[in-house]
Amino acid sequence: MLGVCYYPEHWPEEYWARDARRMHALGLSYVRIGEFAWGRIEKSEGVFDWAWMDRAIETLGAAGLKVVLGTPTATPPKWLCAKYPDILPVDIQTGQVRGFGSRRHYDFSSETYLRQAESITAAMAERYGQHPHVVGWQTDNELCCHDTTMSASPAALEKFRAYCAKRYGNIETLNAAWGNVFWSMEYDGFDQIDLPFFTVCETNPAHRLAYRRFASEQVVHFHDVMISAIRRHAGPEQWVTHNIIPPATTGIDNVALTQALDFVSYDNYPLGFSDQLMATASAEEWRPFMRTGHPDLAALNFDSVRGLSKGAWWVMEQQPGPVNWAPHNPRPAPGMVRHWTLQAFAHGAACVAYFRWRQVPFAQEQMHAGLLRPDDMPATAWAEVEQVAAEMQLLGDVSAVAPKASVAILIDPVSGWVDDIERQGAGYRYDAVLFQYYCVLRSLGVDVDFVSAGEARLDSYKLIIVPTLAVVDDAAFDTLRASEGLLLFGPRSGAKTAEFSISEGLPPGRLREFVPIKVTSVETLRPDCNGTITYKNEVHESGRWRETIEVGAVDVIATYEDDAPAAVRSGRSLYLATLTDDAFIKNLLVDLCAEAGVAITPLPPTLRLRRRGDLTFAFNLADSAVNAPAPNGAVFIIGGAEIEPFGVAVWR
Amino acid sequence: MLGVCYYPEHWPEEYWARDARRMHALGLSYVRIGEFAWGRIEKSEGVFDWAWMDRAIETLGAAGLKVVLGTPTATPPKWLCAKYPDILPVDIQTGQVRGFGSRRHYDFSSETYLRQAESITAAMAERYGQHPHVVGWQTDNELCCHDTTMSASPAALEKFRAYCAKRYGNIETLNAAWGNVFWSMEYDGFDQIDLPFFTVCETNPAHRLAYRRFASEQVVHFHDVMISAIRRHAGPEQWVTHNIIPPATTGIDNVALTQALDFVSYDNYPLGFSDQLMATASAEEWRPFMRTGHPDLAALNFDSVRGLSKGAWWVMEQQPGPVNWAPHNPRPAPGMVRHWTLQAFAHGAACVAYFRWRQVPFAQEQMHAGLLRPDDMPATAWAEVEQVAAEMQLLGDVSAVAPKASVAILIDPVSGWVDDIERQGAGYRYDAVLFQYYCVLRSLGVDVDFVSAGEARLDSYKLIIVPTLAVVDDAAFDTLRASEGLLLFGPRSGAKTAEFSISEGLPPGRLREFVPIKVTSVETLRPDCNGTITYKNEVHESGRWRETIEVGAVDVIATYEDDAPAAVRSGRSLYLATLTDDAFIKNLLVDLCAEAGVAITPLPPTLRLRRRGDLTFAFNLADSAVNAPAPNGAVFIIGGAEIEPFGVAVWR
Amino acid sequence: MLGVCYYPEHWPEEYWARDARRMHALGLSYVRIGEFAWGRIEKSEGVFDWAWMDRAIETLGAAGLKVVLGTPTATPPKWLCAKYPDILPVDIQTGQVRGFGSRRHYDFSSETYLRQAESITAAMAERYGQHPHVVGWQTDNELCCHDTTMSASPAALEKFRAYCAKRYGNIETLNAAWGNVFWSMEYDGFDQIDLPFFTVCETNPAHRLAYRRFASEQVVHFHDVMISAIRRHAGPEQWVTHNIIPPATTGIDNVALTQALDFVSYDNYPLGFSDQLMATASAEEWRPFMRTGHPDLAALNFDSVRGLSKGAWWVMEQQPGPVNWAPHNPRPAPGMVRHWTLQAFAHGAACVAYFRWRQVPFAQEQMHAGLLRPDDMPATAWAEVEQVAAEMQLLGDVSAVAPKASVAILIDPVSGWVDDIERQGAGYRYDAVLFQYYCVLRSLGVDVDFVSAGEARLDSYKLIIVPTLAVVDDAAFDTLRASEGLLLFGPRSGAKTAEFSISEGLPPGRLREFVPIKVTSVETLRPDCNGTITYKNEVHESGRWRETIEVGAVDVIATYEDDAPAAVRSGRSLYLATLTDDAFIKNLLVDLCAEAGVAITPLPPTLRLRRRGDLTFAFNLADSAVNAPAPNGAVFIIGGAEIEPFGVAVWR
Repeated sequence: MLGVCYYPEHWPEEYWARDARRMHALGLSYVRIGEFAWGRIEKSEGVFDWAWMDRAIETLGAAGLKVVLGTPTATPPKWLCAKYPDILPVDIQTGQVRGFGSRRHYDFSSETYLRQAESITAAMAERYGQHPHVVGWQTDNELCCHDTTMSASPAALEKFRAYCAKRYGNIETLNAAWGNVFWSMEYDGFDQIDLPFFTVCETNPAHRLAYRRFASEQVVHFHDVMISAIRRHAGPEQWVTHNIIPPATTGIDNVALTQALDFVSYDNYPLGFSDQLMATASAEEWRPFMRTGHPDLAALNFDSVRGLSKGAWWVMEQQPGPVNWAPHNPRPAPGMVRHWTLQAFAHGAACVAYFRWRQVPFAQEQMHAGLLRPDDMPATAWAEVEQVAAEMQLLGDVSAVAPKASVAILIDPVSGWVDDIERQGAGYRYDAVLFQYYCVLRSLGVDVDFVSAGEARLDSYKLIIVPTLAVVDDAAFDTLRASEGLLLFGPRSGAKTAEFSISEGLPPGRLREFVPIKVTSVETLRPDCNGTITYKNEVHESGRWRETIEVGAVDVIATYEDDAPAAVRSGRSLYLATLTDDAFIKNLLVDLCAEAGVAITPLPPTLRLRRRGDLTFAFNLADSAVNAPAPNGAVFIIGGAEIEPFGVAVWR
Repeated sequence: MLGVCYYPEHWPEEYWARDARRMHALGLSYVRIGEFAWGRIEKSEGVFDWAWMDRAIETLGAAGLKVVLGTPTATPPKWLCAKYPDILPVDIQTGQVRGFGSRRHYDFSSETYLRQAESITAAMAERYGQHPHVVGWQTDNELCCHDTTMSASPAALEKFRAYCAKRYGNIETLNAAWGNVFWSMEYDGFDQIDLPFFTVCETNPAHRLAYRRFASEQVVHFHDVMISAIRRHAGPEQWVTHNIIPPATTGIDNVALTQALDFVSYDNYPLGFSDQLMATASAEEWRPFMRTGHPDLAALNFDSVRGLSKGAWWVMEQQPGPVNWAPHNPRPAPGMVRHWTLQAFAHGAACVAYFRWRQVPFAQEQMHAGLLRPDDMPATAWAEVEQVAAEMQLLGDVSAVAPKASVAILIDPVSGWVDDIERQGAGYRYDAVLFQYYCVLRSLGVDVDFVSAGEARLDSYKLIIVPTLAVVDDAAFDTLRASEGLLLFGPRSGAKTAEFSISEGLPPGRLREFVPIKVTSVETLRPDCNGTITYKNEVHESGRWRETIEVGAVDVIATYEDDAPAAVRSGRSLYLATLTDDAFIKNLLVDLCAEAGVAITPLPPTLRLRRRGDLTFAFNLADSAVNAPAPNGAVFIIGGAEIEPFGVAVWR
Repeated sequence: MLGVCYYPEHWPEEYWARDARRMHALGLSYVRIGEFAWGRIEKSEGVFDWAWMDRAIETLGAAGLKVVLGTPTATPPKWLCAKYPDILPVDIQTGQVRGFGSRRHYDFSSETYLRQAESITAAMAERYGQHPHVVGWQTDNELCCHDTTMSASPAALEKFRAYCAKRYGNIETLNAAWGNVFWSMEYDGFDQIDLPFFTVCETNPAHRLAYRRFASEQVVHFHDVMISAIRRHAGPEQWVTHNIIPPATTGIDNVALTQALDFVSYDNYPLGFSDQLMATASAEEWRPFMRTGHPDLAALNFDSVRGLSKGAWWVMEQQPGPVNWAPHNPRPAPGMVRHWTLQAFAHGAACVAYFRWRQVPFAQEQMHAGLLRPDDMPATAWAEVEQVAAEMQLLGDVSAVAPKASVAILIDPVSGWVDDIERQGAGYRYDAVLFQYYCVLRSLGVDVDFVSAGEARLDSYKLIIVPTLAVVDDAAFDTLRASEGLLLFGPRSGAKTAEFSISEGLPPGRLREFVPIKVTSVETLRPDCNGTITYKNEVHESGRWRETIEVGAVDVIATYEDDAPAAVRSGRSLYLATLTDDAFIKNLLVDLCAEAGVAITPLPPTLRLRRRGDLTFAFNLADSAVNAPAPNGAVFIIGGAEIEPFGVAVWR
């Protein structure tokens, strides 16, 4: 299904009915409204104006559209900030209060704000929880965007102290857990604990990890209160979702954040995110993808979100043209809006909603394209949406959960926190390590699931890649033990205890049950100063992060320049002790896929495959046609044996 | 005429008479004193010491020099800051008070400071307003230097609220004008408005534009009060000027700032400004100009200042050797001080005053060269000033207004604010767009006037270039309509309303009267990832900022790589929808000059021409001799047919 | 002798005895403990727990180890910060209080902290000042690390005003000394003086120089109070030292800081410091040294520290493997821990102590290697320490002062401050200028002493290099006059008065007694835009900082591209007026060494020599063997005629 984001409050009321008719005629089924509209709903504390929203919903519903209601807690109005200035967050770099005038100016630890946000959410749910045109809810908007997870506010400090008291029970336990004997950092009581900011040099990593856990829990708690407020009043047929930004960018536990939702939504801006991701890429690297996005970036986020979602998932906001917020904002290549839409469905989406109906000529996002131009004429994307709306009919039912893939990548938020907190080498980034595996698998035409450590079951996967699992808790350990596929661990796995110490008996700690090795030393190198790793007589780069390992009963499958072991295997488990180049990863994964019985289809950089049910989707990111890698006898549902530039083919 | 900046308070009184005699003997006519001397004039509030200044003026005047008096408001003394700390400005990045200890530590919105500054200014004017040796006044010094236009002070907040109340009348009007319905940014009253700083993400561009207008008006108001204070006491023969820094760097409305002056002065530091401008240039690009300055940068500022000035204009401070404030501070090439001096006169200056008489051995500027070294011996520039003083006799009267050029570039401050506020593409800079046109015209040997949108009359120009005119107000519109020359609009012209919305009916809004097109989409690209624009079968770069246009009844004169229109013409008006390379601009301008009857003389990068009256000046920036591009029969006033390295030729 | 740093409080008490036995068995003689342990010694104000430390010392001593006690003032515990928040420093960039949670969170100007620090230091000294196992004391730890020399605290402001009142006597004197007439910066009283931070543009350099002197004196005063507190209670056989970081990085007067010590110690981290130093080097430049460190960086600091020390000096902390704090943290090449150890002895060390005994698995430094791994097994360095412990026997007595070298480099802190305060050219760095001379001399196989201006006697040196001596005070002047060797002054020598004015009669001021020249102008260039300097018909680069000089009765020995003098000589004194390339410096120094009778041995970049007494040490930094440059008949004490990769040879 398709949908669109709409802001009736931005337009004269006489536009509404025509807009609704055109939406429906275009083939859109859903329309999201309401998030950001707090100021128009609650004019001052407790004084509500529902009339306009009643009429808007009625008008949209009357045209045959299903309404998704966004709760407006991302934009507390000025009267609220003026009355309760303690709701404002505090910048962790500068110590400055982050004030009113844009959005997300609230502190997740503010009790005042929690109460106010719950109140407006409950009020909306009470009013529209039984409304026949309202099919579901979106909480807030893009939680944690604009670096809002962490705050240095008095409210955060108070709550963090309480969090510590609850987690550790008594201060001696905390001191021991964090190793506060180091540098005389021991506290006499929880009321002495500060936030880990504004110190002379780096704070205790255990302190920071505790704060990161706390900050994540604050967001989750806020969000859960909002979900509960909706569910108290909404009918059982109304679902609740949230539109998340790229999961790796928020610094929170996305599993916890989304567990109380009916499904998860994602805001998909391939060009803006790629411009940021590839900011330091050369012109040669960037030019082929500046109007398509990096070939694996949207897919990465699609697969990540599918992993979080209870069922099929949504794209709640789909880029329809140039956006306004990246350093450079190119126009999508012709056909890419359709391409991205079909790509989302290939990766398991149930609905793709475009952001936004009509480009608004004022305020912060006036340079952000819509389906309509500010002069109410169709923008470039319009015809592509028309096309894909028709094509949707051919795809069949997309509301069901997509089947599992054969290959899984295991992820967890703690590894990202560990990386942020203890970089050790400027060339190491958890996200980049993970992305490298993903890109290589995608270039081999392999479908990938992301599974969260400790949550998901791994039993159906033939190959499980653990790029890094810095902390192995009981749940993750049990999950890994219960798996049956080949297991590939990357460096830094099992490196730390839950309280950010080096693992007992050296890394990989309890992962030694899988691979009997000890990481005796780690070195980090400049990215341009590599050593080597040799695998099957081919020499590759070994760099950035390199571990020295002592091995027990393992097979050494790759070696460093000094013949020391660089990758080892024990039974179905492998441990790669270094970061390396794409070619090494590809060679290794080709071998592992062959062993595991995972079919591969090596692809050029501008061609990608994805299966959903019995359909195979092929995506051509090149500006020239390409032959679809379809088997003989394939029945084409969309497109044909030659895929046009930026085109898509789907066959059965 | 020539002059010099002098600080009698820096030197023992026994130096003064000898200094004065030497100035006069060197051929200097004017001497500027007094700016920065507040602490020596007013020792505590209301307690004045005029005696030393009386003697200084008397001594200088007695030697035949005309005195220009600077009012000292750029440096409020410590007693004033200590007594009235509310005069201090607040940094808009950090929120910190910017304290005493350097200069410009005052807030343009402080009523206290306005009163104090008016008081010292009036006191000086009262004392010297009839003095026979005092011929004129310089207000303050380099207003807005050191990023002082904007302040986050309580005074600025209070005045900004009042400004908004006055401009918009009621809060509903402001909310509507700014589009505050977006993100629930609506205010209930003017007392809720904040300064647009310290928010979570970007503030409303309309909010920021209002603040930029306000900040500019605060500076202008402060300045106007100072001018009035002088005029109340000064005799009618005493003129008032102000020494501005490069107009594009202050972020204010220079037309408004300078309108109450008798003429405008400029502080000319070609090497320091060029080192900053070309900071990222390669060594090959920079080396030829590191001791001459960029060939068109000083000229750009000369022509800009001439455009602002009521009559001929002054260089109030001319770099005489290495300065102290750029990242690198080379020595001028031999002859460049003379060269720059003659260049200023070629561009219409009436006087060039050197900064400063003698290098002072102490405090912040001790590494800044003067005409004399700290040991009182002539510095390198001395002989060049002697030479040019003699050559001045040959030039004739330079006090009159320079005649108009045939080509005008239209500028306005709002386009710069729009660029600052809504960058959209990291490769777009209003100043750079404007500078590209200017450099190409100068390389064609064409004289250029800068005219301010809405102020100047355009009727005598054969070719008018509008690099960008983001907001087209009535005055600018009428001026353009009343013009008769060829009109070339660059991209983003007519893009915004006065309140920073997208223009009605899409850009270029009311400029559609000139060129019937619609800008339906904008894309911004990385500077190294261009598309193309084809003009007369030559393919050029099209990049950074590219507009898609729908065209009415126009001629398409250049096209993008997909054959879509990239430049169009309707009657005498052209619209170029993209940024492009120098070669395209040159090809187009060569054609337009030919059509308009503007003579061109293509020049190498190290040779520049400029006419004043019946004189033609040629400036050789190369370290080798060059033939003067003079017509047969030219009569050389200065130099001859072969121009020496770094030399100048003037012919009639 | 060898030693190790140990933290009994980090480990279960049952480890202690075994640890002590293993230390002794490994060949270690000294063990440093106690610094950072404040929180375990003084649990709340005045409440001490000595028992554990008594037992630790007893256990270590019983195993035959000599204990060095560190006073714990680098880490005030939380109860102290909570009770006396005025002890915290304030960041000079942001104005924020730098809080508890890491280390060095105290203000050198806080009277409260001075009293508290003196109290804990005296208490320790009282308890252990006569202890038979305690042989000496280390004050605090790495004073001024983490940019803690300067603070913008109220305490610093109050003390700075008092400092100014004492130094200048009356405010008129200060105003005159600083040249405050410039920009109306004159004060009416000392209570008006601010710290030189948070202003609109740069403050008066004289103001900043005064603050730098003050800040240095605050550190020295604090340190002297601590030393006195120890000496009041400690027996005369117990010595006092301090472990300094690279002397050039603290911004203080290291001579003053260390004068009351018995000897000076240094913390040697060759890889971390080199990664920082060579951060912008190409991969080709960096790769050969990433596992050895820059060939001259550790040596530079060794020689600097030897210059400060009263007798032989110590390495108090020696890197034994990868560290945790540089941007990249490679593993040392095999043998480098032994190599660095012997290098320290070659440069005059009396003891090398490794940091640390066992890698601690928790808190900030858990990724910092030790001699033992966290699993208590020997780390890589262990075997190298075993080897070097045996080799120590062959070296003989290393407790005596190393003999003087023939070549001296004169250094002083004020030149560094002048450079920080008035950069003038982005390509000029005092430290880099000094380092260039040092590296060239080391590449010629020449031993170098660093002598501090005004302190040391120069009479025995054949060649004295003064890279820059910006301010020449009486003591330095007398020292130079009393010297007899060749004297080479670099640019900017004699440039400033003690109050940061240009020297009387132009630079080099009173150094004109040595070289009768006047620096009439200075230019600074981009590092990639050089001019030339010609010496003996060879053309070299002249760049970054170039002075124009007027010469008296001198020989011009090198010239600029315009034949102006670039280097001159008068008797035994030379003045080089420009920065230049290594080849020029090498050519000049080869000639000067020949004239002075200093033997040279030109070396490749990966080979270095150093003599101590009758021993010659050769250090091979290459990964291949090299022939030792030993004379015929050399008797090898360590190694032989072929030095193994990363190896060392010592001969007599």
